[in-house]
Amino acid sequence: MRRFIVIGHRAVTDGNFKLNDMAGGAGRLDVLLRCVNSAFFLSHGIRRDTEIYLIMLGPPNPPVTVRLVGKEIRYLNPDERSTGSLIRNALLKAESDREVNSSPGIYVSRVGLEEVMEGLADSRVIYLHENGTPMEDADIEPEELTFVLGDHMDLTEEEEAIVEKYNPLRVSLGPEILHADHCIVVAHNILDRTVKGK
Amino acid sequence: MRRFIVIGHRAVTDGNFKLNDMAGGAGRLDVLLRCVNSAFFLSHGIRRDTEIYLIMLGPPNPPVTVRLVGKEIRYLNPDERSTGSLIRNALLKAESDREVNSSPGIYVSRVGLEEVMEGLADSRVIYLHENGTPMEDADIEPEELTFVLGDHMDLTEEEEAIVEKYNPLRVSLGPEILHADHCIVVAHNILDRTVKGK
Repeated sequence: MRRFIVIGHRAVTDGNFKLNDMAGGAGRLDVLLRCVNSAFFLSHGIRRDTEIYLIMLGPPNPPVTVRLVGKEIRYLNPDERSTGSLIRNALLKAESDREVNSSPGIYVSRVGLEEVMEGLADSRVIYLHENGTPMEDADIEPEELTFVLGDHMDLTEEEEAIVEKYNPLRVSLGPEILHADHCIVVAHNILDRTVKGK
Repeated sequence: MRRFIVIGHRAVTDGNFKLNDMAGGAGRLDVLLRCVNSAFFLSHGIRRDTEIYLIMLGPPNPPVTVRLVGKEIRYLNPDERSTGSLIRNALLKAESDREVNSSPGIYVSRVGLEEVMEGLADSRVIYLHENGTPMEDADIEPEELTFVLGDHMDLTEEEEAIVEKYNPLRVSLGPEILHADHCIVVAHNILDRTVKGK
């Protein structure tokens, strides 16, 4: 299983935003939507062995986590607008820290990074970082992998401290610093090409 | 210079489409918009050494080619909607086979694949293809590279015949078949990591 956790530092936490203004009024929700695309889409299908957690920390009522599950997901299209609509529906159903199903393969709860990572304690945590080991040289086993990324902003010190508790492997993807959605594409590709027995 | 040619087989060729329906009525324009994002965006800037040609073959008046030039481009944001607006403005200015400037770094003309490739005859052509040599093993020099890709549809036989005239290097990016925009991300990353003297 490949899991991606993306922290949306200013991403809206209710369903009261316009699909025409997701890069503005919705707190750069567009970044998270492109991450969903990168996590799941193959040319002829969906990466069923993948999950993504969108940790949304903007107003009015953070945190909210939307979890998308590849092996269950339906109604997912690659464009930003249609995925924005699915995420808006999920935000409208956010109730408490108990996870609620919004549509097939999409779940929502009022939890943040700390709770999400506690639930994934058995997983190998990989922190994508410009000063990490080149991913191709890192000794990554294919089993349970959890990648942690920021959106258009780096992790805060508090967030880094949470991640550090899980003894993460710091890996870099190359000499250029990439957008979060591009990082996910590259990480998938390197795993596709290099990890045995996946 | 890294150039990407993406063929939009059904992409709209006038400016008469809705920004709310780019994945539908605009003939999967969304695919081309994501390719623009992949071609240009780095975390802290634009890849200035890159150009992308969108060859648009849908109704009502194909072909139209929109060319985006990294070293000149302005007003480019990563989200689909704002890039769709720039492309719509370009389509509104398409006149003849003579290229017209639409906005800084964006040019439009009524030409198709054959004319575009004639203009790039000195470039090394790379045809991304699932049965090609793995790109990391291909002996790629950093100079003038032109990648040719289809959108959500493969190249037709006629399009392949045009590309074949330029003795292309067929390269694959890994065991999974990827969306065109993901291919561009991976190709950039492999070049970033492996090509010397870039």
